[in-house]
Amino acid sequence: MSAIRHALSVKREDDFAQWYQEVISEAEMAEESGVRGCMVIKPWGYGIWERIQTLMDAEIKAAGVENCYFPLFIPLSYFAKEAEHVEGFAKEMAVVTHHRLIGDGEGSLMPDPEAKLEEPLVVRPTSETVIGAAMARWIQSWRDLPLLTNQWANVVRWEMRTRMFLRTSEFLWQEGHTAHANREDAMVETLRALEMYRAFAEGPLAMPVIAGEKPENERFPGAVATYSIEAMMQDGKALQAGTSHYLGTGFAESAGIQYQDKEGAQQHCHTTSWGVSTRLIGGVIMTHGDDDGLRVPPQIAPHQIVILPMLRDNEEDEALLAYCEALRGDLAAQHALGEPVRVLLDKRPGKATQKRWAWVKKGVPLILEIGGRDAAGGQVSVLRRHRLWNEQAKPNFEALPRDQFAAAAATELECIQRDLFEEARQRHDANIVRNIDSLEALAEFYGEDKRYPGWVELGWSKPTGAALDKVVATLKDLKLTIRNTPQNGDTPSGKCIFTGEPAVERIYIARAY
Amino acid sequence: MSAIRHALSVKREDDFAQWYQEVISEAEMAEESGVRGCMVIKPWGYGIWERIQTLMDAEIKAAGVENCYFPLFIPLSYFAKEAEHVEGFAKEMAVVTHHRLIGDGEGSLMPDPEAKLEEPLVVRPTSETVIGAAMARWIQSWRDLPLLTNQWANVVRWEMRTRMFLRTSEFLWQEGHTAHANREDAMVETLRALEMYRAFAEGPLAMPVIAGEKPENERFPGAVATYSIEAMMQDGKALQAGTSHYLGTGFAESAGIQYQDKEGAQQHCHTTSWGVSTRLIGGVIMTHGDDDGLRVPPQIAPHQIVILPMLRDNEEDEALLAYCEALRGDLAAQHALGEPVRVLLDKRPGKATQKRWAWVKKGVPLILEIGGRDAAGGQVSVLRRHRLWNEQAKPNFEALPRDQFAAAAATELECIQRDLFEEARQRHDANIVRNIDSLEALAEFYGEDKRYPGWVELGWSKPTGAALDKVVATLKDLKLTIRNTPQNGDTPSGKCIFTGEPAVERIYIARAY
Repeated sequence: MSAIRHALSVKREDDFAQWYQEVISEAEMAEESGVRGCMVIKPWGYGIWERIQTLMDAEIKAAGVENCYFPLFIPLSYFAKEAEHVEGFAKEMAVVTHHRLIGDGEGSLMPDPEAKLEEPLVVRPTSETVIGAAMARWIQSWRDLPLLTNQWANVVRWEMRTRMFLRTSEFLWQEGHTAHANREDAMVETLRALEMYRAFAEGPLAMPVIAGEKPENERFPGAVATYSIEAMMQDGKALQAGTSHYLGTGFAESAGIQYQDKEGAQQHCHTTSWGVSTRLIGGVIMTHGDDDGLRVPPQIAPHQIVILPMLRDNEEDEALLAYCEALRGDLAAQHALGEPVRVLLDKRPGKATQKRWAWVKKGVPLILEIGGRDAAGGQVSVLRRHRLWNEQAKPNFEALPRDQFAAAAATELECIQRDLFEEARQRHDANIVRNIDSLEALAEFYGEDKRYPGWVELGWSKPTGAALDKVVATLKDLKLTIRNTPQNGDTPSGKCIFTGEPAVERIYIARAY
Repeated sequence: MSAIRHALSVKREDDFAQWYQEVISEAEMAEESGVRGCMVIKPWGYGIWERIQTLMDAEIKAAGVENCYFPLFIPLSYFAKEAEHVEGFAKEMAVVTHHRLIGDGEGSLMPDPEAKLEEPLVVRPTSETVIGAAMARWIQSWRDLPLLTNQWANVVRWEMRTRMFLRTSEFLWQEGHTAHANREDAMVETLRALEMYRAFAEGPLAMPVIAGEKPENERFPGAVATYSIEAMMQDGKALQAGTSHYLGTGFAESAGIQYQDKEGAQQHCHTTSWGVSTRLIGGVIMTHGDDDGLRVPPQIAPHQIVILPMLRDNEEDEALLAYCEALRGDLAAQHALGEPVRVLLDKRPGKATQKRWAWVKKGVPLILEIGGRDAAGGQVSVLRRHRLWNEQAKPNFEALPRDQFAAAAATELECIQRDLFEEARQRHDANIVRNIDSLEALAEFYGEDKRYPGWVELGWSKPTGAALDKVVATLKDLKLTIRNTPQNGDTPSGKCIFTGEPAVERIYIARAY
């Protein structure tokens, strides 16, 4: 049996970070832009983001949240109000100081000293402050509550070390911001958003996650409680894939978001915020990618099926194309996963095998190759991207009667969606260790040579303040972090390995992106 | 007969500019943000933008154009390459010079002098330069052409005098950028985009436009030819509502966008760009708004039908709501204008008449008021927003059997779409004057007291260079501009009123936004 010749030059097990870059490059998802820390998102990467947007936006609207658009620029003074909040962003923000360019007398341009802004403007790293100011204008009475807003936008956080999709200076996201009459209502919304993210990750993204509360030291700056979904990447590291924050009344107090309650008294609102970003695409790559490139879950695939006619530049091409076009029409008329099937007939010039491998690397769920003989015989040759190789180390094409394939295509896509989730879920479950009972065992488990460490779930005493700082420092020496406390976890027995006190809740510990 | 009591405090004929602001405010479309030149787009305004995006994006994709995302920031040096291009933007751009804030020692923040960027970054005013750099990387051979890209993004052009939706420092738009092998292909694409915009304006926006070529002096900086759609607002002024540019090889030469042709020779690409922005929303307001607020064409209305139950806070509410909910379901199951009908059941607390007038001002095409008696009698009370008043100066409600209304609702929406277009088209046609045969007549026509000047169509000799500058200066004294030369216009007879030479083509002259 010959060895498989994979489409990528780097294997996951050899160099996961390099493999990740190669997937992005070979699947033509994104590239460096020449602008520090900013990427160009290419059609295949952006198409996946559009799918994420479309599906997530429907969930957001179904929850009664209305989309708005707030300014890109935030006056510096807005940040001064929010000292704790700003501190948390390490102040690494892009600052606009001038509004005009002039010639520098040497053939180049420079900021015009005459056009210096009186007050510098910050490019939004997140919009709590500017949306808070709007909420203060919009909310007067209890009748105005809850106020549920969301925006899809670009944000900028200056990053020294960037990695495409995972950490870039500019990224795309949605940020939900809501205001409520009391803590209870705000907590319901915070947890609704968290559950929306969990269901979205495990549904359309086929990416298993743990939803839970972050420890105190990992809270969003200014938040009373921060919740996250955490996904396990194929290198065993954790990726924080979405967050939801209960902000208490702190932001309302600094922005003046008040309402008159039914008794006529002025009250501060309780606010929340929640967001997911283009980082999700990085999560999809590291969850589903393999040594041949990306595998895109059908629900978020820009094309779910690609038809490749084996054109020969001769007179038979016309009949072949007609056959393919009719098949395309039949497939596009079907529904899978609640939407019309997205199918592309790829008629571009180029060698069929080259085109095949380009689509393999992009991770289209189903690739159909159709030659003149297939057309004459009423056949299609089907390649399932997620089960790419046969036992002879060849691409695992299956020849099927055209009508049989067409009748089953929707079910096929739904099964692929499920298969990808199941594969990820089994890996996720298999790599959570629960029998660590001492700091030494933890250190040993994450020993230097461990290639695939996975996560550790254990009970702890939930220390706070200085005691927590000590735990965090201990973990940091091991390059570890606390990810979150799972929702609905039972109360553990035994003692906390950090403090020796009785354990009161479970936490996940992992290396992380 | 009593006088109509309109919903707005300012009438169009009394103060059009003030009326425009009041529509935006009363329809809750947008508001000042507190950030100079930037607006907050509120749910109703943003909902209209989302409708525009959804429909336009489908047209863009249908033309084979793929969406990408390019960086917000453009290094200063990119602009230095494009001297003519930059000159055209009057260099009024937001410039990022620092990437960190620090405390100023007095409790406030300031840009950290230690974090000054070596090269300032410009917030994109448009993306020709950065997309050109990407095209230079992406294009090698004739096989890579045409390259058809588009992005939906925010852009910033520092504006001293701003007007919501029409001229703001930050605005939202789509910018298409394409590269082609030769002039002919690029011109086909330039005109395809123009025709897409014309059909979009006259279709979903119900806004009649003239599509044509801009005169030389109005070209996009660096373009060989610029085309526009021009719409007539209710005050008779013209609004440039979309542009499409043939850029020749100039941008390709400065960005190095080259391809190897079939003979193996290196050639520069011919590029195009085309865009529409949130300015379209301003056009919709000034085309369809009336003295009671906005009227939204059904195709771009976030809600096409709003059902208002006349709740009384008593036990009968439940049956009334069930009746309304069943009606909502029936309506939502129908298709109008090619899409499912968008219907909202507005159950929020508040007085029914207050809620009615809020929806009137927002311009929802159909408002249904339903009380207990209507529900008992199987009736609905229908208000058509575009025919709001009856002869007794009262809101023109029509009581209809519920099933009869439901059966006809889709047709009703389609008729409203057509009615709004027809109304605008008649006004447009009635206010173009074609009998101006001298400069004096032109000056007289646009005399000081003329409240509704409309447009003048006339033949001219198409002067260029200094001769054109003279014409432009003459028109400027009259506060007039040349809008465009209509496509497919016949060749006029007679002489040019500016030069005395024989007229060679028609142009439109108007005051403009």
